[in-house]
Order: sequence, then structure tokens, then C-alpha cells
Amino acid sequence: MNQVKIFDTTLRDGTQGEGISLTVEDKLKIARKLDELGVHYIEGGWPGSNYKDIEFFERVKELPLQHAKISAFGSTRRKGIPAKEDTNLNRILETGVSVASIFGKSWDFHVETAIQTTLEENLAMIADSVSYLKSHGLEVIYLAEHFFDGFKHNEAYALNTVKAAAAAGADCVVLCDTNGGTLPDGIAAAVGRVCKELSIPVGIHAHNDCELGVANTLAAVQAGARHVQGTFNGLGERCGNANLCSVIPNLQLKMQYRCVTDDQLAGLTQTARYISEIANIHVSPNQPFVGASAFAHKGGIHVSAILKASSTYEHISPELVGNKQRVLVSELAGQSNLLAKAQDLNLDVTRQTDKTKAVIEQIKALEHQGYQFEGADASLELLLREAFGELEHIFTLESFKLLVEKSGDNPFLSEAFVKVRVHGESIFTAAEGNGPVNALDNALRKALVKYYPAIAHMHLADYKVRVIDEKDATAAKVRVLIETTDYKNSWNTVGVSDNIIEASWQALVDSIRYALIGKERSAIAEDAPFGKAGLINH
Amino acid sequence: MNQVKIFDTTLRDGTQGEGISLTVEDKLKIARKLDELGVHYIEGGWPGSNYKDIEFFERVKELPLQHAKISAFGSTRRKGIPAKEDTNLNRILETGVSVASIFGKSWDFHVETAIQTTLEENLAMIADSVSYLKSHGLEVIYLAEHFFDGFKHNEAYALNTVKAAAAAGADCVVLCDTNGGTLPDGIAAAVGRVCKELSIPVGIHAHNDCELGVANTLAAVQAGARHVQGTFNGLGERCGNANLCSVIPNLQLKMQYRCVTDDQLAGLTQTARYISEIANIHVSPNQPFVGASAFAHKGGIHVSAILKASSTYEHISPELVGNKQRVLVSELAGQSNLLAKAQDLNLDVTRQTDKTKAVIEQIKALEHQGYQFEGADASLELLLREAFGELEHIFTLESFKLLVEKSGDNPFLSEAFVKVRVHGESIFTAAEGNGPVNALDNALRKALVKYYPAIAHMHLADYKVRVIDEKDATAAKVRVLIETTDYKNSWNTVGVSDNIIEASWQALVDSIRYALIGKERSAIAEDAPFGKAGLINH
Repeated sequence: MNQVKIFDTTLRDGTQGEGISLTVEDKLKIARKLDELGVHYIEGGWPGSNYKDIEFFERVKELPLQHAKISAFGSTRRKGIPAKEDTNLNRILETGVSVASIFGKSWDFHVETAIQTTLEENLAMIADSVSYLKSHGLEVIYLAEHFFDGFKHNEAYALNTVKAAAAAGADCVVLCDTNGGTLPDGIAAAVGRVCKELSIPVGIHAHNDCELGVANTLAAVQAGARHVQGTFNGLGERCGNANLCSVIPNLQLKMQYRCVTDDQLAGLTQTARYISEIANIHVSPNQPFVGASAFAHKGGIHVSAILKASSTYEHISPELVGNKQRVLVSELAGQSNLLAKAQDLNLDVTRQTDKTKAVIEQIKALEHQGYQFEGADASLELLLREAFGELEHIFTLESFKLLVEKSGDNPFLSEAFVKVRVHGESIFTAAEGNGPVNALDNALRKALVKYYPAIAHMHLADYKVRVIDEKDATAAKVRVLIETTDYKNSWNTVGVSDNIIEASWQALVDSIRYALIGKERSAIAEDAPFGKAGLINH
Repeated sequence: MNQVKIFDTTLRDGTQGEGISLTVEDKLKIARKLDELGVHYIEGGWPGSNYKDIEFFERVKELPLQHAKISAFGSTRRKGIPAKEDTNLNRILETGVSVASIFGKSWDFHVETAIQTTLEENLAMIADSVSYLKSHGLEVIYLAEHFFDGFKHNEAYALNTVKAAAAAGADCVVLCDTNGGTLPDGIAAAVGRVCKELSIPVGIHAHNDCELGVANTLAAVQAGARHVQGTFNGLGERCGNANLCSVIPNLQLKMQYRCVTDDQLAGLTQTARYISEIANIHVSPNQPFVGASAFAHKGGIHVSAILKASSTYEHISPELVGNKQRVLVSELAGQSNLLAKAQDLNLDVTRQTDKTKAVIEQIKALEHQGYQFEGADASLELLLREAFGELEHIFTLESFKLLVEKSGDNPFLSEAFVKVRVHGESIFTAAEGNGPVNALDNALRKALVKYYPAIAHMHLADYKVRVIDEKDATAAKVRVLIETTDYKNSWNTVGVSDNIIEASWQALVDSIRYALIGKERSAIAEDAPFGKAGLINH
């Protein structure tokens, strides 16, 4: 059987990660997106543990899901009571889900130390709980917590716990490496053994504490597991769960298992980024398969080779997972990176050789001063367009003043005064801010918004400062990188100076100029009194 | 043989990661730290590719390294010329290193497509280059680029390339999964085969494109590799290199190989965080082993269990890698570290329990606001001394104003006006600077130098800014870290605010206050007209 079922627990185990907190709305949005991607199960939460999850199970019924079954999480019954009196199990039934995923203990040490009961009672807790849920018609996924640690310390007992679940009617037994400390060999041996002992499907639930969450999941599938649990972007407690963004393409593209359709797989990158946006969690750009850098090439040799054949430095075609190739411009790269970028912009770099050489010299000189364009695509584009005479200047800075003041115990005061010339008019504005850059940003927008109303809808999403030459720190050069977004797109700009305000100002101005290239230029033509006669220089 | 050699390429392959740019100073600092950790090789850069790397190799000779050998990177000779005429190989010799790591092609597709030569000439390029470097007495590590892809497509040819390197005298052959697309099984099979064919040590260089960089490295060691390449925090091109922060503890704690001493291993977390600070790269808190969340417990069940026995939810003792357990009920990690620090300063933390509690509460509150004392020992010391009444306040800030101005094409102007009270005298100074922080620094020193002449001899050595909360970038909080030196010692201070000037000011003031605790207090007693009667507050 070549099919592997994907069980997503982003909404349950994922939310146990540090700094992760999802509203019910967030969870519903993510559930819908996961369903589009084609996962088979979505674990929505633990109804026995909090009321937010109960509301989720109520409202998720209204979603028009196409693929995924919703599962509710819980534990086996408490020691010493009948299953039907266990609140936690009854809460699962009350949600009205068709699938329950309940966890129980496999490790004798945990039975005796953590829940403090006998090994026999623990087996009864497992069997009773599974039977009870089955008797109400649910599909039951049994999660064997700490299975691998248990298997290592008391193999016979660990096996008895999963046999008890299977005998009681569980539809699937999932082996959990709860502490994330097992290596792939240990995973494969235990999964292989359980697959021999049981006639129902076996699953894997791996954590990433040894940076082996994905490897352990793949090893389990090779050993016979056909149900895989994980989270998007590897969210989850401590070091997170097995990352489905890597598990799915590895299984499907490298190991020829079937998880989702090819079209669904092409939605992987977008799904991962969407979930990171909703969860407001910074996802590393170098995340495999779906990260912004996953197919980004910087070294000059690599770039000149991928221009000959992508497969020279790419292990898969990025489009298969909905990602794309990027060529970064940097001091490490030769000309080939820059030419590739210019071609992207439809600038004719082949025939206009003088211009091409001049702009390459200019970029080299700027990089030598400390500019870095690989993190500032928008500034690079402005520079290239300018070199090729394709950039219209929209406003001129006449002057600005910035005042930061502190007196006694009063709070800091930041005020900016900006004088710009736009469409022949000289505009003088003043604005306050939480800090100097914020004050400048506010004053500059205030000056421009009359002619370019769309800039009201963009805002700065990230602001980074880096000292380039540290020999004499406060007199040293700094590089400022700014990310700006208009909620649909985002773009990055750079400024360098030995004055942090000047560097910030350059990056701010570029971010606005870039925004005005595209949609604003056409808007100006239609709306603005002076048409497209945008003027010289910032 | 149980020893595995660690070859760090953070300074070479690591810098090919997007957004990573290290100065020569940065590289020297990192080299020193890697040496302390006990890595066996540090690959410093590619002298044939850029001048910054040549400067690094010159200056690294001055460092008192204890453990690590420095290696210079390069390629095999160009096609069609003798090795001795190859600039790139000669540049390696010119650096004066004792180890060279040179890469060559293993994959017939690459030979024909990327470098466009014959399979025979490629073998000659490998053999000639290795022989040439060996004839100059270097230890030569041969990097078989794309070995696993080559082995899959043309096994015999791939094997011939590494045999050519070995026959020419290479000291070690490292098999590279350059595109990061191979799974652990494929790695193990190829490494096992090469180990049988060659009598010299075999190494592994894995990338993380399938989120298997660590797993592939471990699989290679199990198959016989005894030399492991990777980077700290997994920095590197695209999805990064195999992460040594996970590779080392897995090999040493889980697989019983020897990489570094136990004491060195206990420095792993600090090394990882230090490198991330220097590289100014955000390292995910959920990074295995060394991340701030790696042993952080959030779930209620987990927390109550770890209070009974840590091993219930921890796969190793965090202290083994210098990390620590955190229970996310409290923001403050490592109260014991704090107490240890106070004891270092001879502050009596055992008997003065009210003071101790108060200062812990204060630090908790500050950490919650975004302060971070790990990189700011001097600020922490000031805080502790203040809590224990051992700090004399030397000056009071009455007010300051900062003006930054830009008019037309004139250069930026930065002026600061500072009013402080020192020894009963109110001093009002004005100073210019290259930027606002420099202007403030100059004005503040000008005000204090009359009473404290020694501050003329200290200067700021480093200035770093980081946005803490990225939700609304220019209005977000920033953390400023400043390093100050008086040419003998250096110390670090911190400031946090949503105003970058305020945060810088706090760190500046702390850096001067700290300088005045030690030598200045005694200097004052001898030289200053008002003796030690240093006054209240900054």
C-alpha cells in the first residue's frame, strides 16, 4: 500500500509551542487551508482542556471541508473510574466529531512516576477508553505516548499497551516519540516490531528535539507506518513537531508514497506561509522546500551553473512545491547574478553593454561601502531601472530636521519636520513618533499622501540595523534594512551611512519610491493634477 | 575508532546563506569561539575568491588558538593549465595555512555541463591539484562535490574521482551532498562503499534541503565516516548546512562518539548564541539543543511531570549542552545563574533575602520588556550592585536635545546638547558627531571628562541594534547592545526602548557608569577635588 495518511496537529500540539496563541478565528482559517492542501485529518484541539477548543469544534462544522476529517484530542480515562464517567472522554463525544485521538501511557516509568498507578490499571484505562469511544461509533486513533522510551526500557509492557488498544477496537495505533530523543534506527526497529504484532495501521508522531523529526518520520514509514502526524512549519512544544512541510514532499517526491495530489502539493509553500502569517510566527527563510531562501542562489559558481541547468544546484524543481528559484546579488557572486536579476525585470542587459558595465561598477562600489542588495530586492530594482533610464522621480527632498529631546523624568520626545517638493508644490510637514525613524516616516507620508493616497495603506513590517565596520562603533557605518508591506506584497530596501538616521531615511525613501513605481504611476496618470510629470531625485 | 573530527565551515559555507555578511573582525571573533569549543578545523574562507578572506588569513595567525587548525578553501585547478599556474591554488599557498580543503567534481553531468570539460581532464584536475598542495607540505582535504548525485548516476566515475584524490595523497576525502537532496539510506550506502574502497579517512558534508542535514550526517558516521562538516546554527546557502549544534551532541551523547570534551560540550549553547549575535542572524528559539525553547515546558501536564522527574519530558539533561530547563510560567530563566553572578561580585545573596527577591523581580520585569542580560554583563552588574546599595551615582542627567538636519545636498548634520550635574556643578555641553549616537556620546564625555579624565581613553567597540517586536516596525521596541573598551578590558551594556535614541542612550550611560565603578572610583579619590562623593542617578 503506497498511501500515507497525513494527520495535522498544528491546531493542537502546534499551539503548545512557545509564543504561539491562536484565536478560534485563526484556527478556522488554518483548518480551511489545511483542508485545501488535502490533509486527511485535522486535530482541532482538546475539548476536555479548554473552552476555546469547544467553540472551535462547534464552528468548524459550518466549514465546507472537502478532504479532512476533524479529530478531537483527549487522554485515556482517569485511573479508578469507569470510562463513561470520565469528563474528558465525554467532552470528545459532545463535540460531535467523527474521529477521536486519545493518548495513553506506554512507558512503565511514566505510569508509576507521572500518573502514579499500576501497570495493570493503565492497560485497563487504555482498553476501556478505546471501547467506550468505539461504542459511540467514533473512529479511534490511539496515541502511544513515549512509546519509544517505553520500548527501550520495558519492551514487553510497551507492546502490551498498544495490543490493548488494538484489541479494544482502535482503528490506528500511533507511536509517539514524545521527548524527541530517539534516533532513526531506534524508530525503525520499534515501528517494524509493532507492525508485525498488530494487524491495524500503525502511525508515527515525532518531535524535533534532536533535529531528527523529519528523518524519524521517514524512517517509520520505511519500517511500515502509514499514518504520519506533524505540524506545519514544525510548530510545537520545545523544538516542535515533525514538520509536515518537509515530510510531505520527501514522502511524495523522493520516496514515491502518495499523500496529496500533485496540484495540492503545489500549494505547499503558500499554505506554509499562510499559516505562519496567521500564527504570527517568524518562519525561517531557510526552511526546507517552502522557505524564501530554499531555492535562492548566492555563490557565483552556483549561479553561473544554474543558468546553464537548474538541476546542477537544485534537488527538485521548486514549482513542485509552489516555491521559486531566486538569484541573490552579493559580493560572493559574479556578474551572472546581476544579469539574471536584470533579465527578470526585462531590462536589456545583453545589448546595452556600456550601461550594464556601469551599473555593475556602481553596485560593486555600493557593496564596498556596505550596501547589501541580496536582502533589498526593491532597492536593487530601483537602481537597475534608474541605470536603464526607466525610473521617474516623483518627489524631491528639500530639507528635514529631526529633534529628539529628553528633560528630567519626562518621556522622550521625537519630532520630525520634512520639506519636500511634489508636483511643483513645496510641502512642509511636522510629525511626532515613538522614535526618530517613526517620526520621519510619519512626516514623509504626511507630505506625500495628498498626491499619492495609496501610501496610506502601506506600512513598515520590519526594520533591521547592522553596524558594518565595528572598529569605532558609534562613528561606524550602519546598514538599515526595511521591509514594507501593503498587505498584498512586501518589498525590502536598504540604506547605508555612518549616520543611522540617514541610513534609515534612505531605506524609507526607497520603500516609498518602490511602492510608487507600480500601482502609483498609473494612479497618478489618472488622478493627479500634474499627470506623470514626477520630478527629480529623492 | 571512536573519534569524529569536527570541521566547521561557518566562516565559508555559512556566509553563503542569505542575509549573512561577516566582517573580518566578526570572523576572527567567531574563530576564537569555535576554537574554545574544541572544533578540529575552521574553514576560514576562499582566498582565491575575495580579498576580505585574504585579510582574515593574515590576521588569524595572531590569534592564540588552542585546538583548531585553520583551513583555506579552493577549487581544483582550472581545465587545461598546470596546477602551479592556477591562481586559486596559489592563493591558498600564499595564506600560509597548514590545511587546504579543495573541491572537485564527482558527477559526470556537472563535468560536462557546468565546467564543460572531459571526464579524463576532470580526473587529472583532481590529481594534479592534490599533488601540488601536498608537494608544498599541506594537509589536503578533498571535497567531492555532488558525490551522492554522481554516485547515483554514474557510480564508477564518482568512485574514480575520489580514488584519484586519494592516490594523489589527499589526507581525507569528504563526500558532499551539495544539493541536499539525498535521503539517509542513499548517504549510508555510498559512504559505506567509499570506506571500503579507500584506506584514508572519509568525511561527510551534508546540506539541509530535505530537512535531513543532521540525519544524513549521523547516517554517514554510522556507515564509517569519521570527519564531519557543518556550520553553527545550520547557517549556509539555501536551507543551510548540517547544523553542528545538533550533530555534535547527537554523536557524543546519543551515539557515544568523541568529538569534544565534556566541558567543551557544556559551552555549546553559549557558542551558538554568541555566533548568532555576531552574525546578527535570528536563531529560532526552538532550535534543538541550544534554543531558548529547547527545554521550555508549557503544557500543564508536562510541567507537573517534570517537577516530579525531569526525564519524563526531557531527552537529555540540558546542562550537558549548557542549556537550561525553563518552565514558561515565569519569564526568568536561571535564577541560579543570577545568584552565581551575584556571588561572583561578592554580594551576599544568601542572607539578604528581601533584596535578592526584589532584584530578581526587577530583572524579570526588565526581561519581560525585552532586556537581555546574557550579552550585557556590565549592565547586569550595575543592576545588582545598585540593588545591594553598592553603587555610587556619579552624575545626574538634567536634559538632552538631539538635532539631526539635512538640507538640500549638504551633508547630514548631527548635534547633541547635554546638561548634566556632576559634583554639584551643572555642566552644559554641545557636540557634533557622524551620527546621533556618536554626537550624544561626544557631548556626554565632554561633560564628564573634567572630573573623570580616564574616560578619554575608553571608546565604543561595537554597537548592535535589534528589533524585538516586529509587528509595527518603526514603532517597535529595539534593543541596543554596546561594547566598550579601554584597550585593556571590554564590557557590554544594554538599552531597550521603542525609541532607538533612548535605547542607545541607556546603553551609553551604563557603559560610562560601569567604567567609573572600578578604576575611576580610586582615581577620583586621588585626583578629583570632591573625592568619592559621587552623586545620585544618571
